[in-house]
Amino acid sequence: MEEDGDVNGGGENRREISKEGSIHGFESVHRLLEASLRPEIYQEVSRLLVGLNCGRPLERISLPNITENLSLSHDFDLQAFCFHAEKEAMRPPRIVRVGLIQNSISLPTSAPFPDQKKAIMQKVKLMIDAAGASSVNILCLQEAWMMPFAFCTREKRWCEFAEPIDGESTRFLQELARKYNMVIVSPILERDVNHGETLWNTAIIIGNHGNIIGKHRKNHIPRVGDFNESTYYMEGNTGHPVFETAYGKIAVNICYGRHHPLNWMAFGLNGAEIVFNPSATVGELSEPMWPIEARNAAIANSYFVGSINRIGTEVFPNPFTSGDGKPQHADFGHFYGSSYFSAPDASCTPSLSRCRDGLLISDMDLNLCRQIKDKWGFRMTARYEMYAETISQYMQPNFTPQVIVDPSLQKPKV
Amino acid sequence: MEEDGDVNGGGENRREISKEGSIHGFESVHRLLEASLRPEIYQEVSRLLVGLNCGRPLERISLPNITENLSLSHDFDLQAFCFHAEKEAMRPPRIVRVGLIQNSISLPTSAPFPDQKKAIMQKVKLMIDAAGASSVNILCLQEAWMMPFAFCTREKRWCEFAEPIDGESTRFLQELARKYNMVIVSPILERDVNHGETLWNTAIIIGNHGNIIGKHRKNHIPRVGDFNESTYYMEGNTGHPVFETAYGKIAVNICYGRHHPLNWMAFGLNGAEIVFNPSATVGELSEPMWPIEARNAAIANSYFVGSINRIGTEVFPNPFTSGDGKPQHADFGHFYGSSYFSAPDASCTPSLSRCRDGLLISDMDLNLCRQIKDKWGFRMTARYEMYAETISQYMQPNFTPQVIVDPSLQKPKV
Repeated sequence: MEEDGDVNGGGENRREISKEGSIHGFESVHRLLEASLRPEIYQEVSRLLVGLNCGRPLERISLPNITENLSLSHDFDLQAFCFHAEKEAMRPPRIVRVGLIQNSISLPTSAPFPDQKKAIMQKVKLMIDAAGASSVNILCLQEAWMMPFAFCTREKRWCEFAEPIDGESTRFLQELARKYNMVIVSPILERDVNHGETLWNTAIIIGNHGNIIGKHRKNHIPRVGDFNESTYYMEGNTGHPVFETAYGKIAVNICYGRHHPLNWMAFGLNGAEIVFNPSATVGELSEPMWPIEARNAAIANSYFVGSINRIGTEVFPNPFTSGDGKPQHADFGHFYGSSYFSAPDASCTPSLSRCRDGLLISDMDLNLCRQIKDKWGFRMTARYEMYAETISQYMQPNFTPQVIVDPSLQKPKV
Repeated sequence: MEEDGDVNGGGENRREISKEGSIHGFESVHRLLEASLRPEIYQEVSRLLVGLNCGRPLERISLPNITENLSLSHDFDLQAFCFHAEKEAMRPPRIVRVGLIQNSISLPTSAPFPDQKKAIMQKVKLMIDAAGASSVNILCLQEAWMMPFAFCTREKRWCEFAEPIDGESTRFLQELARKYNMVIVSPILERDVNHGETLWNTAIIIGNHGNIIGKHRKNHIPRVGDFNESTYYMEGNTGHPVFETAYGKIAVNICYGRHHPLNWMAFGLNGAEIVFNPSATVGELSEPMWPIEARNAAIANSYFVGSINRIGTEVFPNPFTSGDGKPQHADFGHFYGSSYFSAPDASCTPSLSRCRDGLLISDMDLNLCRQIKDKWGFRMTARYEMYAETISQYMQPNFTPQVIVDPSLQKPKV
């Protein structure tokens, strides 16, 4: 999670738009443009804004009725697409179906903690059932999905939501993973009981047989705006693991790590084909970044990215200040959802709703990753040896930047 | 320069749109949206697509009549904006006016080479005069601006366009730099006579007194699609220099280097406040990347970026093939222009025309760079030591990726 320090700035305006989304038909920029533009103009704008996949606009796919009906009866957004790759002569396609879930919390943050967690699990279960009914192979939930994103309050009582790797929420998901033969990525607040109750921001990878494959801990921790996540947990110690699942090699870049191209890079160097970015972010400043960073990572590293952001405004019992001189307030702003997939060929899906829970599904032929590597050759032209040296030098306390000064600036003044 | 190997794929269609741009009013996505959407919808779409600067939509600025008149009489696109920063208590604003020029060639590629070069210089001089009349402080031209981008032909005779650092085009620009008290970045095909006539793809930095401050050679060379720039020149040997000019610290990431986040990073580590990306790129695949990569670099490295792409379709005397099984052809596709600025706060300008020459001017308060560093803290949360180690390990021939395999995949098959 991260924050832009501008919660009270444009927040009111944005929330009004969210509430009255239907005025503009404004669940997402793509849907707004589709509703507002002539079809031939929308097609050209879309080509430039979301790219083409194998020379064509991204294909929508249909889902079973049971999934559609769950979406309608429980009012969550549902979108489904397909990323193609070229046919190869030497290997068959490797098509996997991947899902992302974004959601708001279910009960007020003043409710008893066990009830809050249970209510979120009930809500998320419905969307997992919807994903399962559509035979999703790999599913990722949002950052710290089993609790309100309370880190803005700086109150330590929210630490009670933390769980060990094999805790309540994991057991809950293990059962669903087995039931649906599905890999599930579960980002939680972790309590490491074997290391003196240390807290971490962690993603657990649950295999399609319900087994725990492993975990990854958030590498980069924000210290931005009115709050500081390092109040609760520190930089992760798990490196950049790639998890080889039954359906492909996946990794998890948790939230603020998306601002760090080196973090994206390292998952790529370890061979990731899909990198998930479960996030929790609000505000005027980060929303324009949101469609940029994950797409750039997919392009630069020749893998797919699944970006997830939570939904809604979470109001806390005790007001807090934001270090910006503005009055105290009890909420952290609007989590704008907008989950989406990016592909290595620079195409991407439209995003899910800015104001509703949602399930985004996409088929993706993982062969596209190597095809793009062969075509563009970014790995072979990267000159890593130069950058290992550059970074090593930069880390030295006496580092001198490579600066060439205009000599006319250095002339002694007469 | 780089290419997507899809010249004949969507090329015809695209060229038709370019030629008949006025049918859709389609000089750029932004102008297309502005003309097609209701103002309140355009404002919201714009907030999400190009961001806000200091909480407001990016401000347009007016230019002197002489600049406007040159744009009208010589039919080049002219756009001008202003990036603000917050007021600081400890230092005054540092506002510089920066310009980007995009242009097509002037004569057919079959004309005598000296005439071709002279004609380009005449055309570009008019736009430099327009920039000078508007008191632009730092101006950047496009990649290999003094020649057609003939590297797709694989014919070596185009090497004749190469010049030493202090050659004809440099002397031409030195005079204009002096006249207008302007720093000019001049990307050319360089002939290094002191090293056995070696060729380089090089940007020369000319100081505002007409002095040559230094040079930078393109770090990453494409080997993509129907041609291979390493036919002509190899990876640069100048590191990642930052040039401290009278108006700020600038650097140049030439063309294909924009696909390499490490290249962008290294200019940032050396202290760049503005990084130019002079490019020459065509095609269906790279156009959707174009608005992503530079903006991501500006965000990730807390500096401004000026992106430039040339204009038009350059037809060569001898047809060539593209290694894609399609018939030989005499052009490389449409260079789509679309030059634009990106800022560290995730805002960006609308882009210049996709089909006309253009001059883009923007004021920018360089104080914004440090303000964004203080706010987001990307440098301090980057964990460079971890990545220096990761890259060093990756370079080893016996590198083993950090992969955690689902144990159920490893069970012996019964």
